Amino acid sequence: MKIIASRDNSTFKTLRAQRDTAHALLDGPHLLAAYLDKVGRPLRVIVSESGLGHGEVSALLARCGGSEALCLRDALFRELAATETPVGILAEIAVSTTDAAPPRGSCVLLDAVQDAGNVGTILRTAAAAGVRDVVLGTGCAGAWTSKVLRAGQGAHFDLAIRERVDLAAFLSGYSGTSVATVARDGESIYAIDLSGPVAWIFGNEGAGVSENSAASARRRATIPLAEGCESLNVAAAAAICLFEERRQKLVRMAET
Amino acid sequence: MKIIASRDNSTFKTLRAQRDTAHALLDGPHLLAAYLDKVGRPLRVIVSESGLGHGEVSALLARCGGSEALCLRDALFRELAATETPVGILAEIAVSTTDAAPPRGSCVLLDAVQDAGNVGTILRTAAAAGVRDVVLGTGCAGAWTSKVLRAGQGAHFDLAIRERVDLAAFLSGYSGTSVATVARDGESIYAIDLSGPVAWIFGNEGAGVSENSAASARRRATIPLAEGCESLNVAAAAAICLFEERRQKLVRMAET
Repeated sequence: MKIIASRDNSTFKTLRAQRDTAHALLDGPHLLAAYLDKVGRPLRVIVSESGLGHGEVSALLARCGGSEALCLRDALFRELAATETPVGILAEIAVSTTDAAPPRGSCVLLDAVQDAGNVGTILRTAAAAGVRDVVLGTGCAGAWTSKVLRAGQGAHFDLAIRERVDLAAFLSGYSGTSVATVARDGESIYAIDLSGPVAWIFGNEGAGVSENSAASARRRATIPLAEGCESLNVAAAAAICLFEERRQKLVRMAET
Repeated sequence: MKIIASRDNSTFKTLRAQRDTAHALLDGPHLLAAYLDKVGRPLRVIVSESGLGHGEVSALLARCGGSEALCLRDALFRELAATETPVGILAEIAVSTTDAAPPRGSCVLLDAVQDAGNVGTILRTAAAAGVRDVVLGTGCAGAWTSKVLRAGQGAHFDLAIRERVDLAAFLSGYSGTSVATVARDGESIYAIDLSGPVAWIFGNEGAGVSENSAASARRRATIPLAEGCESLNVAAAAAICLFEERRQKLVRMAET
């Protein structure tokens, strides 16, 4: 395995610039294991010199059989790894996005959700709710950045993710029920029939769903909060909506 | 107003050490405004020299009438403020905890939830769901630390918060239904009657609810996830459970 010791090495420079390209870096054994389970081998696997001694790292390295492997001096590795105490393994993968037409099933649209933790948590929740398509409009945190990958906990590999999408144009081609979530004066989410395909729109942490996106949706829905409370964290709101949809679909399945 | 310019000033030193005491620092206009609306005047209000020029800061300062006011040179202020771009106002408040006996209504118990963002988001969700009592066991992020306050968005002032509580002892005095949330093999949350008082237990990000806490609960509940998905972020799970309870209670209220 090639060992890189210099900051001036061109491969190292490329890796460090990775976050804005069509490649992404998976940080740590958990994400790499999820990728190997669900997708396949990464393009390249990168270990730290001290990581070579970890049993978990060498087991993963063995599973990456055909992938190019690189070893970095620990100091260089720390510059690439996003976490403070990296176990010593990173994997470079091709980012999997799609430009396919709107799906027939349910999907989640994010309108300028800026916080990486929120975007990653919503991806994780969508996968757990059985929703496969997630569409990020402009102004969202990048789906394949290290913080979003970390919060997603591997959900990325179960999803079809679209980025930098014009949400209004997307919705015009969607045949199911589109629902913009708004802080007040929408229909109660509990009063809407969610047993068919639903496109949910969740908005920016401060401003909510933009007027333009809300106008493109067929319905506006509100989570009925306790008296005197104004809002929820957007990832909490998404969890409530997506699992209300899942609950209604489970009830319907049990009835038929 | 007294201006503090030196790092050696004893008041400044005390403020900097604040986070482990019975006092907490509210960072920024949003939290202070929520406190003024819901609780009253802070013990002390602290502004940065440049903050004095902001209209929002001077309006809040006026609302803090009887509170002691301090002005810090900008460099000192930045050492105290938790956010990267502080607007220039902090408030010192007495931490409001309770040792009262378990409530009769619903409550949320956190078992070693370590991430400050998760704890704060759960506090915010609990308040929005109409749950008033939150009980933090050992190993949780401190409820009154700056990151938890920020994620809580003012929910702290709507809640009765207990910290460093023996959860099993607390549950032994609770008369409602106690429900430990577990990743698998519990009853479906949708199959449990949540129309009466419920004590929910949510567990650590990695390990979940400890065996000891789960054994103290009357029931074990699981959120039914899509095939192949293992888990949710704990704050997302809490949102789903607390709003399933709220939905059931709203249905019951509509029926009676």
